[in-house]
Amino acid sequence: MEFEESGIGEECGVFGCVAAGEWPTQLEVAQVLTLGLVALQHRGQESAGIVTSNGASPPTYTAHKGMGLVSTAFSPEALTKLRYGNLGICHTRYSTTGISELQNCQPFVVDTLHGKIAVAHNGELVNAHALRKKVMRHGVGLSTSSDSELITQLLALTPPMEELDSPDWVARIKNLMTETPTSYSLLVMFKDVIYAVRDPYGNRPLCIGQLVPISKLHSPVKWCSLSPSVHYIFLSLLINRYYREVLPGEIVQISRHGVKSLSVVSRPEGDLPAFCIFEYVYFARPDSIFEGQMVYTVRQRCGRQLAIESPTNADIVSTVPESATPAALGYAEQSGLPYIEVLCKNRYVGRTFIQPNTRLRQLGVAKKFGALTDNFAGKRVVLIDDSIVRGNTISPIIKLLKEAGAKEVHIRVASPPIRFPCYMGINIPTKEELIANKPEFQDIAGYIGADSVKYLTVEGLVSAVQEGIAFHNEKDKMNSNNKSDRKVGHCTACLTGKYPVELEW
Amino acid sequence: MEFEESGIGEECGVFGCVAAGEWPTQLEVAQVLTLGLVALQHRGQESAGIVTSNGASPPTYTAHKGMGLVSTAFSPEALTKLRYGNLGICHTRYSTTGISELQNCQPFVVDTLHGKIAVAHNGELVNAHALRKKVMRHGVGLSTSSDSELITQLLALTPPMEELDSPDWVARIKNLMTETPTSYSLLVMFKDVIYAVRDPYGNRPLCIGQLVPISKLHSPVKWCSLSPSVHYIFLSLLINRYYREVLPGEIVQISRHGVKSLSVVSRPEGDLPAFCIFEYVYFARPDSIFEGQMVYTVRQRCGRQLAIESPTNADIVSTVPESATPAALGYAEQSGLPYIEVLCKNRYVGRTFIQPNTRLRQLGVAKKFGALTDNFAGKRVVLIDDSIVRGNTISPIIKLLKEAGAKEVHIRVASPPIRFPCYMGINIPTKEELIANKPEFQDIAGYIGADSVKYLTVEGLVSAVQEGIAFHNEKDKMNSNNKSDRKVGHCTACLTGKYPVELEW
Amino acid sequence: MEFEESGIGEECGVFGCVAAGEWPTQLEVAQVLTLGLVALQHRGQESAGIVTSNGASPPTYTAHKGMGLVSTAFSPEALTKLRYGNLGICHTRYSTTGISELQNCQPFVVDTLHGKIAVAHNGELVNAHALRKKVMRHGVGLSTSSDSELITQLLALTPPMEELDSPDWVARIKNLMTETPTSYSLLVMFKDVIYAVRDPYGNRPLCIGQLVPISKLHSPVKWCSLSPSVHYIFLSLLINRYYREVLPGEIVQISRHGVKSLSVVSRPEGDLPAFCIFEYVYFARPDSIFEGQMVYTVRQRCGRQLAIESPTNADIVSTVPESATPAALGYAEQSGLPYIEVLCKNRYVGRTFIQPNTRLRQLGVAKKFGALTDNFAGKRVVLIDDSIVRGNTISPIIKLLKEAGAKEVHIRVASPPIRFPCYMGINIPTKEELIANKPEFQDIAGYIGADSVKYLTVEGLVSAVQEGIAFHNEKDKMNSNNKSDRKVGHCTACLTGKYPVELEW
Amino acid sequence: MEFEESGIGEECGVFGCVAAGEWPTQLEVAQVLTLGLVALQHRGQESAGIVTSNGASPPTYTAHKGMGLVSTAFSPEALTKLRYGNLGICHTRYSTTGISELQNCQPFVVDTLHGKIAVAHNGELVNAHALRKKVMRHGVGLSTSSDSELITQLLALTPPMEELDSPDWVARIKNLMTETPTSYSLLVMFKDVIYAVRDPYGNRPLCIGQLVPISKLHSPVKWCSLSPSVHYIFLSLLINRYYREVLPGEIVQISRHGVKSLSVVSRPEGDLPAFCIFEYVYFARPDSIFEGQMVYTVRQRCGRQLAIESPTNADIVSTVPESATPAALGYAEQSGLPYIEVLCKNRYVGRTFIQPNTRLRQLGVAKKFGALTDNFAGKRVVLIDDSIVRGNTISPIIKLLKEAGAKEVHIRVASPPIRFPCYMGINIPTKEELIANKPEFQDIAGYIGADSVKYLTVEGLVSAVQEGIAFHNEKDKMNSNNKSDRKVGHCTACLTGKYPVELEW
Repeated sequence: MEFEESGIGEECGVFGCVAAGEWPTQLEVAQVLTLGLVALQHRGQESAGIVTSNGASPPTYTAHKGMGLVSTAFSPEALTKLRYGNLGICHTRYSTTGISELQNCQPFVVDTLHGKIAVAHNGELVNAHALRKKVMRHGVGLSTSSDSELITQLLALTPPMEELDSPDWVARIKNLMTETPTSYSLLVMFKDVIYAVRDPYGNRPLCIGQLVPISKLHSPVKWCSLSPSVHYIFLSLLINRYYREVLPGEIVQISRHGVKSLSVVSRPEGDLPAFCIFEYVYFARPDSIFEGQMVYTVRQRCGRQLAIESPTNADIVSTVPESATPAALGYAEQSGLPYIEVLCKNRYVGRTFIQPNTRLRQLGVAKKFGALTDNFAGKRVVLIDDSIVRGNTISPIIKLLKEAGAKEVHIRVASPPIRFPCYMGINIPTKEELIANKPEFQDIAGYIGADSVKYLTVEGLVSAVQEGIAFHNEKDKMNSNNKSDRKVGHCTACLTGKYPVELEW
Repeated sequence: MEFEESGIGEECGVFGCVAAGEWPTQLEVAQVLTLGLVALQHRGQESAGIVTSNGASPPTYTAHKGMGLVSTAFSPEALTKLRYGNLGICHTRYSTTGISELQNCQPFVVDTLHGKIAVAHNGELVNAHALRKKVMRHGVGLSTSSDSELITQLLALTPPMEELDSPDWVARIKNLMTETPTSYSLLVMFKDVIYAVRDPYGNRPLCIGQLVPISKLHSPVKWCSLSPSVHYIFLSLLINRYYREVLPGEIVQISRHGVKSLSVVSRPEGDLPAFCIFEYVYFARPDSIFEGQMVYTVRQRCGRQLAIESPTNADIVSTVPESATPAALGYAEQSGLPYIEVLCKNRYVGRTFIQPNTRLRQLGVAKKFGALTDNFAGKRVVLIDDSIVRGNTISPIIKLLKEAGAKEVHIRVASPPIRFPCYMGINIPTKEELIANKPEFQDIAGYIGADSVKYLTVEGLVSAVQEGIAFHNEKDKMNSNNKSDRKVGHCTACLTGKYPVELEW
Repeated sequence: MEFEESGIGEECGVFGCVAAGEWPTQLEVAQVLTLGLVALQHRGQESAGIVTSNGASPPTYTAHKGMGLVSTAFSPEALTKLRYGNLGICHTRYSTTGISELQNCQPFVVDTLHGKIAVAHNGELVNAHALRKKVMRHGVGLSTSSDSELITQLLALTPPMEELDSPDWVARIKNLMTETPTSYSLLVMFKDVIYAVRDPYGNRPLCIGQLVPISKLHSPVKWCSLSPSVHYIFLSLLINRYYREVLPGEIVQISRHGVKSLSVVSRPEGDLPAFCIFEYVYFARPDSIFEGQMVYTVRQRCGRQLAIESPTNADIVSTVPESATPAALGYAEQSGLPYIEVLCKNRYVGRTFIQPNTRLRQLGVAKKFGALTDNFAGKRVVLIDDSIVRGNTISPIIKLLKEAGAKEVHIRVASPPIRFPCYMGINIPTKEELIANKPEFQDIAGYIGADSVKYLTVEGLVSAVQEGIAFHNEKDKMNSNNKSDRKVGHCTACLTGKYPVELEW
Repeated sequence: MEFEESGIGEECGVFGCVAAGEWPTQLEVAQVLTLGLVALQHRGQESAGIVTSNGASPPTYTAHKGMGLVSTAFSPEALTKLRYGNLGICHTRYSTTGISELQNCQPFVVDTLHGKIAVAHNGELVNAHALRKKVMRHGVGLSTSSDSELITQLLALTPPMEELDSPDWVARIKNLMTETPTSYSLLVMFKDVIYAVRDPYGNRPLCIGQLVPISKLHSPVKWCSLSPSVHYIFLSLLINRYYREVLPGEIVQISRHGVKSLSVVSRPEGDLPAFCIFEYVYFARPDSIFEGQMVYTVRQRCGRQLAIESPTNADIVSTVPESATPAALGYAEQSGLPYIEVLCKNRYVGRTFIQPNTRLRQLGVAKKFGALTDNFAGKRVVLIDDSIVRGNTISPIIKLLKEAGAKEVHIRVASPPIRFPCYMGINIPTKEELIANKPEFQDIAGYIGADSVKYLTVEGLVSAVQEGIAFHNEKDKMNSNNKSDRKVGHCTACLTGKYPVELEW
């Protein structure tokens, strides 16, 4: 809940699509991209951008970027401007590096000797500082602080540009991957092709799907598309076929003719993959599929594991809606306690300009929730939350429940305490701000006013996540040719301080 | 769900508060009013307004009104302007009569021989047309088409204004109540007092509460306030005491000295109260309390009743989140089938300017929901919705579930079909647009693509609603002096065509 | 210049037009009204409104109002909405009474027993306070503090409204004119007719014109229109015929069939007309025609008179552009000194958010003007300004000229000092703020840094204004039937304290 | 007039300033820069930007850019953000190359190995295409189509960047000047210094001035500043000392310690300077000083020369206000005919959304002007305009004057016909759109409805411009050390097709 409340943990989202079949396509690429942005909106509300290409030789690119939510940033005029594309990529952003300004908006489009490329990036380069120095030593000026511009200039620089027939973007992308190990899920659009690239550690999600026409009555035009994590874009939303994840280190080319795996860049020997475990805990939408399993199901398992590790002597189990609901249902199932709703959410909260110097500010959370008094008055409540980061948002909820008649409120958190910063693209408070690093953490229950507080263990979380993957790999046929790479491993750096690669700052 | 989707059924909300104790108050009335507006936001997103009074003699009133959501309409500057009030009323509006323009925004403030009064109105006068004629025959020009201006001019006209010491607002309000039977929940602010008025049929909700200081450490200042239906404003949100509903026909005076019942205007003999039954079904927030019972609980009972009336041979019960969830839990409980979530909601939908002439428009609903595939693939699903009005929003959801693997989808609707227009303040489609009046209704399951469709009966709904009231009345002590009036009766006009009063159009 | 700088002296403007010939008209009434608003923009930048009527029985009225300049307030959507009118009235406003809010925007439309009327008002009722009391005593609530609503309610009240066939608006207007002597130029639109009304003292301007089709090739459709003062709307701008002024006290009916004088309400015996003399000095556009003479020419005469009254031993005569230019040319002609420009104006000034607490604020005026150094360095300059009200805007200009090399700067003001407030619709500073009432006025030249300062005398101004009227009356044929009324008299209250009627406050 | 009407001929403006004396300065650099932007606003209304530096080591730069007028683009918040600078540069833009988007806004700030530089550019590189190729061949991606980014990357590329103590920006600027001959007036800010650079042909204006404290009472802090053409910023507006123009090819360093000429890069032998002659004719504000003479005075001379070349048998001379007024006064003086105003300008025109398909569009110009009928009825008018480009704006003015009673209207244009495109930074219509290249030009008087039309000759314009320069050079002391360079020459390419350098496209 606290992530949601405070903007902590926001990151970026990327999405792209190519119209299959004859061009100019009858399908409206710009509108599919807009739907993609909306589906990714939960990953970044700061700005959004779309670039479409007509795929001709030379191509015409059209771009629109705007600050704020997709619904604010994209007017009908903007969509009209973008509609003549046959393929396109888009990006929704929450700044982790780079100041919050329109000029940092992605995708980045740059002109090179071989024409324009467009780049959309989700992640954060661990060695960005050294790479910037390298590029600037070459005489290149960098006009933003964003990793995306850096990536683009790296792609243009090496190997040296010559006026050949072909720019060999794949060689350039491979070179980039040798220069920076993680973290990035990239889309690179050039003329009539999109390259989908995932870093060798697979830290950020990226997957591929296929849009099947909504009605069978329509022409058999097919779409090839790709996106990080949000498989639901394809399977659920746009009524299509989920294809597969891009593998760690893989470069996939998507054109109107289909999907083609071009290469898989390997990690240093012995290194495991490092997919961000917090995608399961909080960031991803519950209908996403990673490593063959639905995120909602993983969260249910976290709830069950939490019930095993930290049982409670109580009357009912409930949730801080809505993100903790799967874990709460899992906890209820495992514990045998009834699942009952205790809070209802106000749909229209927004900002209301309550002055900061008033005690009414304490109502910040209260505005958001109403207490379903009759459901819990006189009862002992186990309240499941998905995370406690700073500890200042769960406290008014507990007070609300207690004053409305709850006999006891026991907080069970479906993830371990966050103790370390993330350098791979997730916005997390400084070490000092994290409640788990503060003296108050010794008596966290007292601090937040609960009768007891328990967290899921790191081991519990890892096993809840990995249990589903094992099952998946056995029956997975689609990715069989790459099965050798499907070693299991996750980035738990924010929980354990063990980063997947050495940090070069 | 369909109400929520389409803006059908929106109405107005009113809220007021008076700072108790010494004036100028230390409490920030304008901010409490803003919180009230936010809590009422679900009742009307078209415009919002606040008027505060300093309560002096003569009083200074300050008003701010704006189009759109509270968060848009109220800037920090507006709040600063309003902050010097010691009492105030506010209004959030969805136009049922009157064009959507700022000048129709409430509360209305008008200057009279005895000074300014401010009026906020929730409802719709059944005999507005005749009353307008009457007022205009008196030589009064009406500058808007809103009932609120009409009410204000009626209050000013009768009895004749004289330069006496006191304008006797209570006599004027009583006179108004004899001229128009329903529907209105009114707040009339004059100088240092708010009159809370509910029409004799009690068609629109109105209740009174008391704000207890959030922290016991603060001074024992008390607040007296009032509001329609949203008891949660007081009990849950602002951590205070729910006091009671305003009775049908009652005039309550609220001042810094407390709450005082001034009068109860009676209905024609034999007429029952006619509280809007759709407040229980859809409009009210689930944590509201009407007639002594929590709305959430009534909805659960509707679900249980629906399971009794229309059992289903299926594997799981689920909900169209979020409004149908209590009914779905009730249905699951009664039927013994497991409650499992099948849809997750995209938090950031908004408008995305999808062109109306494209088949992508069919994705309108799809944008809003993701399918939790693993939870229902291969299963027979009972899907509970709270209402089906036009029938065009449930259809894509069923298609989404089926294409994602649901074996069967059985729709159970926790309310009866709507067949008749509402003339008491609720925005409902025309008779022709209502699915229940169309030929397609004969095969509604086929029309929306479901395996079966069943509605709750009117009798089932009425009994689910009234069961709790009986229970309540027995133990109710607070309203004992008025118990004689607590006859049970509800307006089911939109379901049955039986209007509480004759319609004079 | 100071008026222009500071918003002092702004007032309102009204305009209306009726399409002649067959209806629905091919002409775009809404766009003609918009052009009228633009032409009146200099009279009020606070808000603007248009109401059109289709003229049918019963009529449909369409209104749009907005804050700010016409270009801000009227979007293409607004124009589309308004375009189906066959006649209409509009208003541009600077508040003299009434708070600056959208709800005070004119024209006012009110519904009466006989249908809707729309009213636009330029002026200020001297006895507004007493009239408000009267109306409220009748039981009418007033929702704004604007005179326009008051006028509308007065029209509705007397004589008593009955359900007759005809509301007899002319009788109502006449009654209004007996209740309030000044100041008002009114447009009252009812169904298919506009009544143009000027108060018996003729304090505010109002004239009538006829639009001739721009190209002779078009059909011979004619327009009948009316407007205050801005004859240029018709003669110059829309290439049409200036018709005549509405006489003091006259009610003129304008319909598709033409213009008809209905009545002339007379003043108390012995009272002269009291047309605002400051319309000549500053408010009106220079191409306006009042009392048969062009305002530009009157201003030239003021300049000549000033040269006669206050000759200067100097080298050149110049202007504070642009409003003082005609007077400067007149001064130059009379004095024989050469007219040379010394200041150029920056077209793009606007607000630039200079912090109030910095000495850069002194540059406020400097931003606006550049010095044409070579034209005056080493010379003795006579600088003509049209008015000095507070004395704080001419001072930086003098400093600018002196520092750029002017040997001497002599200020000659083409109007007398303002010493008294205006109660007839013009926004003038309080008595205390007027420089002519301050001790500094004894040494005004020293105070503003000039070598000398001289004002035009009241007698000089009056003679400069009236000289042209006499000439005009001799050859005037058009108004011959009303010549008896054309007594000469002007309101000089702000200069002399002699108000045209007793003030009832 | 036509330039002003149509946005033709708009270009960019640059301005910078350094606070002299102790840092942090007490002066508000951001506000001085804002005043500079306002003064330059007439050169470009599309976007505006400011970058300030605190001048520390390493420096902190703060930037704000926005679309539209300065007053729109710069909010108080933006100014607060910028206020901590001790020096800064700014830019106002009308796009000649580059699409109109925020990301093309200047100044450009880029990070290099030696820290950030900020660049503001007025002009257009004639060999931009070849230079882009060169930069991209080096492996640099260009993210915009603007010359300014290209300039910045060229500065970063050559000579090769090394991690030396000093980046030697002057060597880089000199190298840039050898790679591109024209046209540019550049400001390059690095840490605590601004380099002001003018191309070897001096095509665009650039000058230096010194701000003297407004009041002698303040501390003797001095400012060193620079700007193109708008000497009035310093001499008139900010009450300071005009210093001198930057010479063609000169690099001037401006620091808190003063102004220092670093180098003068020479033109190819035999080439004359090529200052844009249209700066005199139209672009510059009349109070600007170029080559020692005031622009207003040059325009007066153009008017006199026009009277000599094309005398007219007429009664009065007048102007299309305001830009043609100096020429009209010159014509009147030379011809002995009286100067009389015939048109007055509406201050509030703006856009009013007149539908393009209506005959009311013909009123576009009419909205802007009113006819001062009494001044010219029955007379033969010589009307001076500064330029006729497309010929579609003067025509309605002539019609207006004729219909209002002018006996004859003779158009005299104070510049020669434009026949060729500009490749040096001025936005001019295509060859086909220029009236002088159309068949209608053979009977231009008939085409626009005038009785006669005459243009100033190219020779007449050149002599009117150069007459003042010769005079100036004799008495000029300030630039004596560079007098050898002060050969006289101007770019007349748009009139003659003779471009100062070969065009490489």
